Amino acid sequence: MIGIFDSGMGGLTTVRAIIERLPGYDLVYFGDNARTPYGNKSRETIIHYALQNTEFLLSQGAKIIIVACNTASSVATDSIQQTYHVPLFEVISPAVDCALQTSKHLQIGVIGTKATISSNIYPFKIKAKCPEARVFSQACPLLVPLVEEGWLNKPETRMIVKKYLIPLKTRQIDTLILGCTHYPLLKKSIQAKIGKRTTIIDSSIAVADSVADYLQSNPEIDSQLSKQGQTTFYVSDVTEHFQKTAETILKRRVHLNYVRL
Amino acid sequence: MIGIFDSGMGGLTTVRAIIERLPGYDLVYFGDNARTPYGNKSRETIIHYALQNTEFLLSQGAKIIIVACNTASSVATDSIQQTYHVPLFEVISPAVDCALQTSKHLQIGVIGTKATISSNIYPFKIKAKCPEARVFSQACPLLVPLVEEGWLNKPETRMIVKKYLIPLKTRQIDTLILGCTHYPLLKKSIQAKIGKRTTIIDSSIAVADSVADYLQSNPEIDSQLSKQGQTTFYVSDVTEHFQKTAETILKRRVHLNYVRL
Repeated sequence: MIGIFDSGMGGLTTVRAIIERLPGYDLVYFGDNARTPYGNKSRETIIHYALQNTEFLLSQGAKIIIVACNTASSVATDSIQQTYHVPLFEVISPAVDCALQTSKHLQIGVIGTKATISSNIYPFKIKAKCPEARVFSQACPLLVPLVEEGWLNKPETRMIVKKYLIPLKTRQIDTLILGCTHYPLLKKSIQAKIGKRTTIIDSSIAVADSVADYLQSNPEIDSQLSKQGQTTFYVSDVTEHFQKTAETILKRRVHLNYVRL
Repeated sequence: MIGIFDSGMGGLTTVRAIIERLPGYDLVYFGDNARTPYGNKSRETIIHYALQNTEFLLSQGAKIIIVACNTASSVATDSIQQTYHVPLFEVISPAVDCALQTSKHLQIGVIGTKATISSNIYPFKIKAKCPEARVFSQACPLLVPLVEEGWLNKPETRMIVKKYLIPLKTRQIDTLILGCTHYPLLKKSIQAKIGKRTTIIDSSIAVADSVADYLQSNPEIDSQLSKQGQTTFYVSDVTEHFQKTAETILKRRVHLNYVRL
Protein backbone atom coordinates (compact mmCIF):
# COMPACT_ATOMS: atom_id res chain seq x y z
CA MET A 1 0.00 0.00 0.00
CA ILE A 2 0.89 3.67 -0.25
CA GLY A 3 1.18 5.06 3.29
CA ILE A 4 0.35 8.72 3.94
CA PHE A 5 0.46 10.62 7.22
CA ASP A 6 -0.35 14.09 8.40
CA SER A 7 -0.67 15.86 11.76
CA GLY A 8 -4.44 15.79 11.26
CA MET A 9 -6.78 16.42 8.40
CA GLY A 10 -4.72 18.66 6.10
CA GLY A 11 -3.12 15.65 4.42
CA LEU A 12 -6.49 14.59 3.09
CA THR A 13 -6.00 17.12 0.27
CA THR A 14 -2.98 14.96 -0.69
CA VAL A 15 -5.10 11.78 -0.45
CA ARG A 16 -7.60 13.41 -2.82
CA ALA A 17 -4.82 14.31 -5.27
CA ILE A 18 -3.29 10.78 -5.11
CA ILE A 19 -6.68 9.13 -5.71
CA GLU A 20 -7.21 11.38 -8.75
CA ARG A 21 -3.71 10.84 -10.15
CA LEU A 22 -3.33 7.13 -9.26
CA PRO A 23 -6.86 5.72 -9.21
CA GLY A 24 -7.02 2.10 -8.06
CA TYR A 25 -3.95 2.14 -5.78
CA ASP A 26 -4.61 1.10 -2.17
CA LEU A 27 -3.83 3.78 0.39
CA VAL A 28 -3.46 3.76 4.17
CA TYR A 29 -3.77 7.15 5.89
CA PHE A 30 -2.82 8.10 9.41
CA GLY A 31 -4.02 11.43 10.85
CA ASP A 32 -2.42 12.28 14.21
CA ASN A 33 -5.28 14.46 15.41
CA ALA A 34 -4.75 13.53 19.09
CA ARG A 35 -1.55 15.59 18.94
CA THR A 36 -2.44 18.09 16.20
CA PRO A 37 -1.30 20.74 15.30
CA TYR A 38 2.44 20.17 14.75
CA GLY A 39 3.20 23.65 13.40
CA ASN A 40 3.88 25.41 16.71
CA LYS A 41 5.80 22.55 18.32
CA SER A 42 9.54 21.99 18.66
CA ARG A 43 11.74 20.21 16.14
CA GLU A 44 12.45 17.34 18.57
CA THR A 45 8.77 16.68 19.26
CA ILE A 46 7.84 16.80 15.55
CA ILE A 47 10.61 14.31 14.68
CA HIS A 48 9.49 11.97 17.46
CA TYR A 49 5.89 12.05 16.19
CA ALA A 50 6.91 11.61 12.53
CA LEU A 51 8.99 8.50 13.34
CA GLN A 52 6.11 6.95 15.29
CA ASN A 53 3.67 7.67 12.45
CA THR A 54 6.01 6.15 9.84
CA GLU A 55 6.51 3.03 11.93
CA PHE A 56 2.75 2.62 12.27
CA LEU A 57 2.19 2.90 8.49
CA LEU A 58 4.96 0.36 7.81
CA SER A 59 3.34 -2.02 10.31
CA GLN A 60 0.13 -1.71 8.26
CA GLY A 61 1.91 -2.85 5.10
CA ALA A 62 2.90 0.50 3.52
CA LYS A 63 5.66 0.05 0.91
CA ILE A 64 6.15 3.75 0.21
CA ILE A 65 5.58 6.67 2.58
CA ILE A 66 4.24 10.13 1.79
CA VAL A 67 4.75 12.77 4.49
CA ALA A 68 1.64 14.80 3.64
CA CYS A 69 2.41 17.49 6.19
CA ASN A 70 4.71 20.39 5.40
CA THR A 71 5.77 20.80 9.02
CA ALA A 72 6.86 17.16 9.35
CA SER A 73 8.36 17.24 5.82
CA SER A 74 10.41 20.33 6.73
CA VAL A 75 11.75 19.05 10.00
CA ALA A 76 11.67 15.23 10.00
CA THR A 77 12.42 13.95 6.45
CA ASP A 78 16.11 13.29 7.13
CA SER A 79 15.38 11.49 10.41
CA ILE A 80 12.76 9.24 8.76
CA GLN A 81 15.12 8.47 5.87
CA GLN A 82 17.96 7.59 8.23
CA THR A 83 15.73 5.34 10.36
CA TYR A 84 13.64 3.48 7.77
CA HIS A 85 14.80 2.25 4.37
CA VAL A 86 11.65 2.94 2.39
CA PRO A 87 10.88 5.14 -0.61
CA LEU A 88 9.94 8.43 1.01
CA PHE A 89 8.09 11.40 -0.48
CA GLU A 90 7.77 14.74 1.18
CA VAL A 91 5.70 17.70 0.04
CA ILE A 92 8.51 20.29 -0.17
CA SER A 93 10.64 19.20 -3.17
CA PRO A 94 7.77 18.69 -5.67
CA ALA A 95 6.41 22.15 -4.80
CA VAL A 96 9.88 23.69 -5.21
CA ASP A 97 10.31 22.08 -8.66
CA CYS A 98 6.89 23.23 -9.71
CA ALA A 99 7.53 26.81 -8.48
CA LEU A 100 10.84 27.02 -10.36
CA GLN A 101 9.17 25.82 -13.58
CA THR A 102 6.38 28.37 -13.13
CA SER A 103 8.13 31.52 -11.93
CA LYS A 104 9.17 33.99 -14.64
CA HIS A 105 10.96 36.58 -12.51
CA LEU A 106 12.17 34.13 -9.81
CA GLN A 107 10.45 36.16 -7.09
CA ILE A 108 8.95 33.34 -5.03
CA GLY A 109 6.81 33.59 -1.89
CA VAL A 110 6.26 30.79 0.63
CA ILE A 111 3.64 30.63 3.37
CA GLY A 112 3.51 27.94 6.08
CA THR A 113 3.41 27.18 9.79
CA LYS A 114 5.95 28.62 12.22
CA ALA A 115 7.94 25.34 12.30
CA THR A 116 8.01 25.11 8.48
CA ILE A 117 9.08 28.72 7.94
CA SER A 118 11.69 28.72 10.70
CA SER A 119 13.21 25.50 9.30
CA ASN A 120 14.19 27.59 6.20
CA ILE A 121 13.75 24.46 4.07
CA TYR A 122 12.04 26.22 1.15
CA PRO A 123 14.67 28.96 0.60
CA PHE A 124 17.39 26.31 1.06
CA LYS A 125 15.93 23.93 -1.55
CA ILE A 126 15.02 26.70 -4.00
CA LYS A 127 18.47 28.31 -3.87
CA ALA A 128 20.21 24.91 -4.16
CA LYS A 129 18.53 24.48 -7.56
CA CYS A 130 18.47 28.10 -8.63
CA PRO A 131 20.86 30.41 -6.75
CA GLU A 132 19.51 33.56 -8.43
CA ALA A 133 15.95 33.03 -7.13
CA ARG A 134 14.72 35.37 -4.42
CA VAL A 135 12.52 33.77 -1.74
CA PHE A 136 10.24 35.60 0.70
CA SER A 137 8.73 33.59 3.53
CA GLN A 138 5.84 34.28 5.87
CA ALA A 139 4.59 32.18 8.80
CA CYS A 140 0.76 32.18 8.98
CA PRO A 141 0.01 30.33 12.26
CA LEU A 142 -3.67 31.30 12.45
CA LEU A 143 -4.66 29.84 9.08
CA VAL A 144 -4.71 26.22 10.30
CA PRO A 145 -7.19 26.90 13.13
CA LEU A 146 -9.34 29.01 10.76
CA VAL A 147 -9.48 26.14 8.24
CA GLU A 148 -10.12 23.59 10.98
CA GLU A 149 -13.08 25.74 12.09
CA GLY A 150 -14.40 25.82 8.54
CA TRP A 151 -14.16 29.64 8.46
CA LEU A 152 -13.16 29.53 4.79
CA ASN A 153 -15.13 32.52 3.51
CA LYS A 154 -15.63 34.73 6.56
CA PRO A 155 -14.57 38.39 6.51
CA GLU A 156 -12.32 37.82 9.56
CA THR A 157 -10.46 35.12 7.64
CA ARG A 158 -10.03 37.38 4.62
CA MET A 159 -8.63 40.15 6.89
CA ILE A 160 -6.15 37.76 8.50
CA VAL A 161 -5.09 36.35 5.10
CA LYS A 162 -4.56 39.93 3.88
CA LYS A 163 -2.47 40.83 6.93
CA TYR A 164 -0.20 37.82 6.40
CA LEU A 165 0.16 38.43 2.63
CA ILE A 166 0.93 42.17 2.68
CA PRO A 167 4.72 41.68 3.13
CA LEU A 168 4.77 39.22 0.19
CA LYS A 169 2.63 41.46 -2.02
CA THR A 170 5.05 44.34 -1.38
CA ARG A 171 7.86 42.14 -2.73
CA GLN A 172 5.94 41.62 -5.99
CA ILE A 173 6.25 37.84 -5.94
CA ASP A 174 5.05 36.14 -9.14
CA THR A 175 4.70 32.66 -7.58
CA LEU A 176 3.38 31.66 -4.15
CA ILE A 177 3.93 28.21 -2.63
CA LEU A 178 1.17 27.05 -0.27
CA GLY A 179 3.53 25.43 2.22
CA CYS A 180 0.85 23.77 4.36
CA THR A 181 -1.68 21.12 3.37
CA HIS A 182 -4.50 23.13 4.96
CA TYR A 183 -4.00 26.16 2.75
CA PRO A 184 -5.47 24.80 -0.52
CA LEU A 185 -8.84 25.08 1.24
CA LEU A 186 -8.24 28.87 1.46
CA LYS A 187 -6.97 29.16 -2.12
CA LYS A 188 -9.79 31.47 -3.21
CA SER A 189 -9.13 34.04 -0.45
CA ILE A 190 -5.37 33.76 -0.91
CA GLN A 191 -5.61 34.29 -4.68
CA ALA A 192 -7.92 37.29 -4.15
CA LYS A 193 -5.52 38.96 -1.70
CA ILE A 194 -2.22 38.20 -3.45
CA GLY A 195 -3.61 39.18 -6.87
CA LYS A 196 -4.27 37.45 -10.19
CA ARG A 197 -0.71 37.91 -11.47
CA THR A 198 0.74 35.57 -8.83
CA THR A 199 0.57 31.84 -9.59
CA ILE A 200 -0.29 29.66 -6.62
CA ILE A 201 1.50 26.31 -6.19
CA ASP A 202 -0.50 23.64 -4.38
CA SER A 203 1.90 20.99 -3.09
CA SER A 204 -0.73 18.23 -2.91
CA ILE A 205 -0.97 18.12 -6.71
CA ALA A 206 2.80 18.42 -7.13
CA VAL A 207 3.47 15.48 -4.79
CA ALA A 208 0.90 13.25 -6.54
CA ASP A 209 2.64 13.88 -9.88
CA SER A 210 6.00 13.13 -8.32
CA VAL A 211 4.79 9.79 -6.85
CA ALA A 212 3.23 8.82 -10.19
CA ASP A 213 6.49 9.57 -12.05
CA TYR A 214 8.46 7.55 -9.52
CA LEU A 215 6.22 4.50 -9.84
CA GLN A 216 6.44 4.64 -13.62
CA SER A 217 10.27 4.65 -13.47
CA ASN A 218 10.41 1.99 -10.71
CA PRO A 219 8.15 -0.88 -11.82
CA GLU A 220 9.71 -3.21 -9.19
CA ILE A 221 8.26 -0.95 -6.48
CA ASP A 222 5.02 -0.42 -8.36
CA SER A 223 4.47 -4.19 -8.58
CA GLN A 224 4.62 -4.45 -4.76
CA LEU A 225 1.65 -2.07 -4.38
CA SER A 226 -1.85 -3.54 -4.08
CA LYS A 227 -4.45 -2.01 -6.38
CA GLN A 228 -7.98 -2.70 -5.28
CA GLY A 229 -8.97 0.95 -4.99
CA GLN A 230 -9.22 0.85 -1.20
CA THR A 231 -8.31 3.63 1.22
CA THR A 232 -8.08 2.84 4.94
CA PHE A 233 -8.15 5.72 7.43
CA TYR A 234 -6.54 5.62 10.87
CA VAL A 235 -6.67 8.49 13.35
CA SER A 236 -5.30 8.93 16.87
CA ASP A 237 -8.52 10.69 17.94
CA VAL A 238 -12.02 10.10 16.59
CA THR A 239 -14.14 13.26 16.43
CA GLU A 240 -17.30 14.08 14.54
CA HIS A 241 -15.59 17.19 13.20
CA PHE A 242 -12.79 15.17 11.57
CA GLN A 243 -15.31 12.74 10.09
CA LYS A 244 -17.35 15.57 8.54
CA THR A 245 -14.35 17.45 7.17
CA ALA A 246 -12.86 14.26 5.71
CA GLU A 247 -16.14 13.52 3.93
CA THR A 248 -16.33 17.10 2.61
CA ILE A 249 -12.76 17.00 1.27
CA LEU A 250 -13.02 13.51 -0.24
CA LYS A 251 -16.67 13.75 -1.31
CA ARG A 252 -17.44 10.20 -0.09
CA ARG A 253 -18.24 8.31 3.11
CA VAL A 254 -15.22 7.71 5.30
CA HIS A 255 -14.79 5.11 8.05
CA LEU A 256 -12.27 6.16 10.73
CA ASN A 257 -10.27 3.49 12.59
CA TYR A 258 -8.91 4.54 15.96
CA VAL A 259 -5.32 3.83 16.96
CA ARG A 260 -3.31 5.15 19.91
CA LEU A 261 0.42 5.50 19.19
CA MET B 1 3.62 20.47 46.89
CA ILE B 2 0.57 21.80 45.09
CA GLY B 3 0.39 20.16 41.65
CA ILE B 4 -1.19 22.07 38.74
CA PHE B 5 -1.63 20.96 35.16
CA ASP B 6 -2.98 22.44 31.97
CA SER B 7 -3.00 21.50 28.28
CA GLY B 8 -0.38 24.18 27.74
CA MET B 9 0.17 27.72 28.93
CA GLY B 10 -3.35 28.84 29.87
CA GLY B 11 -3.01 27.34 33.35
CA LEU B 12 -0.25 29.81 34.12
CA THR B 13 -2.96 32.38 34.88
CA THR B 14 -3.99 30.00 37.69
CA VAL B 15 -0.37 29.67 38.85
CA ARG B 16 -0.22 33.45 39.03
CA ALA B 17 -3.44 33.57 41.08
CA ILE B 18 -2.25 30.80 43.45
CA ILE B 19 1.11 32.54 44.02
CA GLU B 20 -0.73 35.77 44.86
CA ARG B 21 -3.28 34.09 47.13
CA LEU B 22 -0.94 31.53 48.77
CA PRO B 23 2.52 33.09 48.66
CA GLY B 24 5.25 30.78 49.93
CA TYR B 25 3.60 27.48 48.95
CA ASP B 26 5.69 25.24 46.66
CA LEU B 27 4.07 24.50 43.30
CA VAL B 28 4.81 22.01 40.56
CA TYR B 29 3.30 22.81 37.15
CA PHE B 30 2.92 20.55 34.14
CA GLY B 31 2.02 22.07 30.75
CA ASP B 32 1.19 19.44 28.12
CA ASN B 33 2.17 21.60 25.17
CA ALA B 34 3.34 18.64 23.04
CA ARG B 35 -0.35 17.65 22.76
CA THR B 36 -2.01 21.06 23.12
CA PRO B 37 -4.76 22.11 22.52
CA TYR B 38 -7.23 19.79 24.24
CA GLY B 39 -10.37 21.78 23.39
CA ASN B 40 -11.13 20.22 20.00
CA LYS B 41 -10.26 16.64 20.99
CA SER B 42 -12.53 13.78 22.03
CA ARG B 43 -13.63 13.01 25.57
CA GLU B 44 -11.65 9.72 25.62
CA THR B 45 -8.40 11.36 24.54
CA ILE B 46 -8.75 14.23 27.04
CA ILE B 47 -9.39 11.77 29.91
CA HIS B 48 -6.36 9.70 28.91
CA TYR B 49 -4.14 12.81 28.89
CA ALA B 50 -5.54 14.13 32.21
CA LEU B 51 -4.83 10.82 33.98
CA GLN B 52 -1.26 10.75 32.67
CA ASN B 53 -0.70 14.36 33.77
CA THR B 54 -2.08 13.69 37.26
CA GLU B 55 0.10 10.61 37.66
CA PHE B 56 3.15 12.63 36.69
CA LEU B 57 2.40 15.38 39.24
CA LEU B 58 1.84 12.79 42.00
CA SER B 59 5.19 11.18 41.11
CA GLN B 60 6.77 14.62 41.65
CA GLY B 61 5.39 14.82 45.19
CA ALA B 62 2.13 16.72 44.64
CA LYS B 63 -0.26 16.29 47.59
CA ILE B 64 -3.15 18.18 46.05
CA ILE B 65 -3.99 18.53 42.35
CA ILE B 66 -5.46 21.53 40.53
CA VAL B 67 -6.82 20.86 37.05
CA ALA B 68 -6.11 24.35 35.68
CA CYS B 69 -7.74 23.63 32.34
CA ASN B 70 -11.46 24.01 31.80
CA THR B 71 -11.54 21.38 29.08
CA ALA B 72 -9.91 18.72 31.28
CA SER B 73 -11.96 19.90 34.31
CA SER B 74 -15.18 19.53 32.30
CA VAL B 75 -14.47 16.10 30.93
CA ALA B 76 -11.97 14.32 33.19
CA THR B 77 -12.60 15.33 36.85
CA ASP B 78 -14.66 12.22 37.68
CA SER B 79 -12.13 9.89 36.08
CA ILE B 80 -9.23 11.46 38.00
CA GLN B 81 -11.17 11.30 41.26
CA GLN B 82 -12.05 7.64 40.72
CA THR B 83 -8.45 6.72 39.87
CA TYR B 84 -6.41 8.70 42.42
CA HIS B 85 -7.34 9.42 46.04
CA VAL B 86 -6.02 12.95 46.30
CA PRO B 87 -7.67 16.29 47.07
CA LEU B 88 -8.69 17.52 43.62
CA PHE B 89 -9.64 21.01 42.51
CA GLU B 90 -11.13 21.85 39.16
CA VAL B 91 -11.84 25.27 37.74
CA ILE B 92 -15.58 24.83 37.07
CA SER B 93 -17.19 24.73 40.55
CA PRO B 94 -15.46 27.82 42.00
CA ALA B 95 -16.46 29.85 38.93
CA VAL B 96 -20.06 28.60 39.22
CA ASP B 97 -20.24 29.61 42.91
CA CYS B 98 -18.77 32.99 42.13
CA ALA B 99 -21.21 33.55 39.23
CA LEU B 100 -24.21 32.65 41.39
CA GLN B 101 -23.07 35.06 44.11
CA THR B 102 -22.59 37.82 41.54
CA SER B 103 -25.55 37.49 39.20
CA LYS B 104 -28.58 39.60 40.04
CA HIS B 105 -30.98 38.44 37.34
CA LEU B 106 -29.61 34.88 37.06
CA GLN B 107 -28.96 35.33 33.33
CA ILE B 108 -25.52 33.72 33.07
CA GLY B 109 -23.33 33.34 29.99
CA VAL B 110 -20.48 30.86 29.60
CA ILE B 111 -17.77 30.82 26.94
CA GLY B 112 -15.27 27.99 26.45
CA THR B 113 -13.73 25.48 24.07
CA LYS B 114 -15.85 23.08 22.02
CA ALA B 115 -15.17 20.20 24.43
CA THR B 116 -16.06 22.31 27.49
CA ILE B 117 -19.28 23.66 26.01
CA SER B 118 -20.45 20.35 24.59
CA SER B 119 -19.84 18.65 27.97
CA ASN B 120 -22.69 20.88 29.33
CA ILE B 121 -20.92 20.92 32.69
CA TYR B 122 -21.57 24.62 33.43
CA PRO B 123 -25.38 24.58 32.89
CA PHE B 124 -25.52 21.28 34.82
CA LYS B 125 -23.62 22.64 37.85
CA ILE B 126 -25.37 26.02 37.82
CA LYS B 127 -28.86 24.50 37.66
CA ALA B 128 -28.02 21.92 40.35
CA LYS B 129 -27.40 24.81 42.75
CA CYS B 130 -29.96 27.24 41.40
CA PRO B 131 -32.68 25.70 39.20
CA GLU B 132 -34.17 29.09 38.26
CA ALA B 133 -30.92 30.35 36.66
CA ARG B 134 -30.83 30.64 32.89
CA VAL B 135 -27.54 29.68 31.23
CA PHE B 136 -26.42 30.57 27.71
CA SER B 137 -23.30 28.88 26.36
CA GLN B 138 -21.06 29.67 23.43
CA ALA B 139 -18.05 27.72 22.14
CA CYS B 140 -15.25 30.06 21.02
CA PRO B 141 -12.68 27.72 19.44
CA LEU B 142 -10.59 30.43 17.76
CA LEU B 143 -9.82 32.38 20.93
CA VAL B 144 -7.15 29.93 22.16
CA PRO B 145 -5.04 30.18 18.96
CA LEU B 146 -5.46 33.98 18.94
CA VAL B 147 -4.19 34.20 22.53
CA GLU B 148 -1.36 31.75 21.82
CA GLU B 149 -0.34 34.03 18.93
CA GLY B 150 -0.36 37.04 21.23
CA TRP B 151 -3.01 38.77 19.07
CA LEU B 152 -4.61 40.25 22.18
CA ASN B 153 -5.42 43.72 20.85
CA LYS B 154 -5.69 43.29 17.09
CA PRO B 155 -8.82 44.40 15.22
CA GLU B 156 -9.29 40.86 13.82
CA THR B 157 -9.39 39.50 17.38
CA ARG B 158 -11.94 42.12 18.42
CA MET B 159 -14.13 41.20 15.43
CA ILE B 160 -13.98 37.49 16.26
CA VAL B 161 -14.71 38.16 19.96
CA LYS B 162 -17.69 40.28 18.89
CA LYS B 163 -19.00 37.54 16.57
CA TYR B 164 -18.85 34.96 19.36
CA LEU B 165 -20.46 37.24 21.95
CA ILE B 166 -23.42 38.52 19.88
CA PRO B 167 -25.72 35.58 20.82
CA LEU B 168 -24.95 36.13 24.53
CA LYS B 169 -25.41 39.89 24.32
CA THR B 170 -28.84 39.34 22.74
CA ARG B 171 -29.81 37.28 25.83
CA GLN B 172 -28.92 40.22 28.10
CA ILE B 173 -26.70 38.17 30.39
CA ASP B 174 -25.56 40.02 33.52
CA THR B 175 -22.68 37.64 34.31
CA LEU B 176 -20.20 35.97 31.96
CA ILE B 177 -18.00 33.06 33.01
CA LEU B 178 -14.64 32.85 31.20
CA GLY B 179 -14.66 29.08 30.90
CA CYS B 180 -11.12 28.73 29.57
CA THR B 181 -7.85 29.68 31.24
CA HIS B 182 -6.70 31.51 28.11
CA TYR B 183 -9.58 33.96 28.11
CA PRO B 184 -8.49 36.22 31.02
CA LEU B 185 -5.79 37.46 28.65
CA LEU B 186 -8.60 38.76 26.38
CA LYS B 187 -10.62 40.22 29.24
CA LYS B 188 -10.36 43.79 27.96
CA SER B 189 -11.76 42.95 24.50
CA ILE B 190 -14.42 40.68 25.99
CA GLN B 191 -15.56 43.34 28.47
CA ALA B 192 -15.68 45.94 25.69
CA LYS B 193 -17.84 43.75 23.45
CA ILE B 194 -20.19 42.29 26.08
CA GLY B 195 -20.69 45.71 27.74
CA LYS B 196 -19.99 47.27 31.11
CA ARG B 197 -23.17 45.97 32.74
CA THR B 198 -22.03 42.36 32.51
CA THR B 199 -19.71 41.12 35.27
CA ILE B 200 -16.92 38.85 34.09
CA ILE B 201 -15.95 35.84 36.23
CA ASP B 202 -12.32 34.74 35.92
CA SER B 203 -12.02 31.16 37.15
CA SER B 204 -8.30 31.43 38.00
CA ILE B 205 -9.04 33.80 40.89
CA ALA B 206 -12.06 31.76 42.00
CA VAL B 207 -10.04 28.53 42.15
CA ALA B 208 -7.22 30.15 44.15
CA ASP B 209 -9.75 31.32 46.75
CA SER B 210 -11.27 27.87 46.90
CA VAL B 211 -7.88 26.16 47.46
CA ALA B 212 -7.00 28.71 50.18
CA ASP B 213 -10.32 28.06 51.98
CA TYR B 214 -9.79 24.31 51.77
CA LEU B 215 -6.30 24.48 53.26
CA GLN B 216 -7.53 26.65 56.12
CA SER B 217 -10.25 24.09 56.96
CA ASN B 218 -7.92 21.10 56.50
CA PRO B 219 -4.75 21.82 58.48
CA GLU B 220 -3.67 18.14 58.28
CA ILE B 221 -3.39 18.53 54.47
CA ASP B 222 -1.88 22.00 54.75
CA SER B 223 0.87 20.68 57.03
CA GLN B 224 1.92 18.18 54.30
CA LEU B 225 2.64 21.00 51.84
CA SER B 226 6.16 22.37 51.59
CA LYS B 227 6.46 26.14 51.76
CA GLN B 228 9.73 27.43 50.42
CA GLY B 229 8.17 29.65 47.77
CA GLN B 230 9.42 27.51 44.87
CA THR B 231 7.61 26.81 41.62
CA THR B 232 8.92 24.06 39.33
CA PHE B 233 7.78 24.01 35.69
CA TYR B 234 7.59 20.87 33.56
CA VAL B 235 6.47 20.86 29.93
CA SER B 236 6.11 18.10 27.33
CA ASP B 237 7.59 20.38 24.64
CA VAL B 238 10.13 23.15 25.11
CA THR B 239 9.60 26.12 22.80
CA GLU B 240 10.86 29.68 22.93
CA HIS B 241 7.27 30.87 22.53
CA PHE B 242 6.13 29.08 25.71
CA GLN B 243 9.11 30.40 27.62
CA LYS B 244 8.38 34.00 26.59
CA THR B 245 4.66 33.81 27.29
CA ALA B 246 5.25 32.18 30.69
CA GLU B 247 7.63 34.99 31.62
CA THR B 248 5.13 37.61 30.45
CA ILE B 249 2.27 36.09 32.46
CA LEU B 250 4.30 35.47 35.62
CA LYS B 251 6.51 38.59 35.34
CA ARG B 252 9.66 36.62 36.34
CA ARG B 253 12.29 34.32 34.82
CA VAL B 254 11.05 30.78 34.29
CA HIS B 255 13.13 27.61 33.87
CA LEU B 256 11.32 24.90 31.86
CA ASN B 257 12.08 21.22 32.57
CA TYR B 258 11.30 18.85 29.72
CA VAL B 259 9.43 15.59 30.31
CA ARG B 260 7.90 13.17 27.79
CA LEU B 261 4.80 11.39 29.11
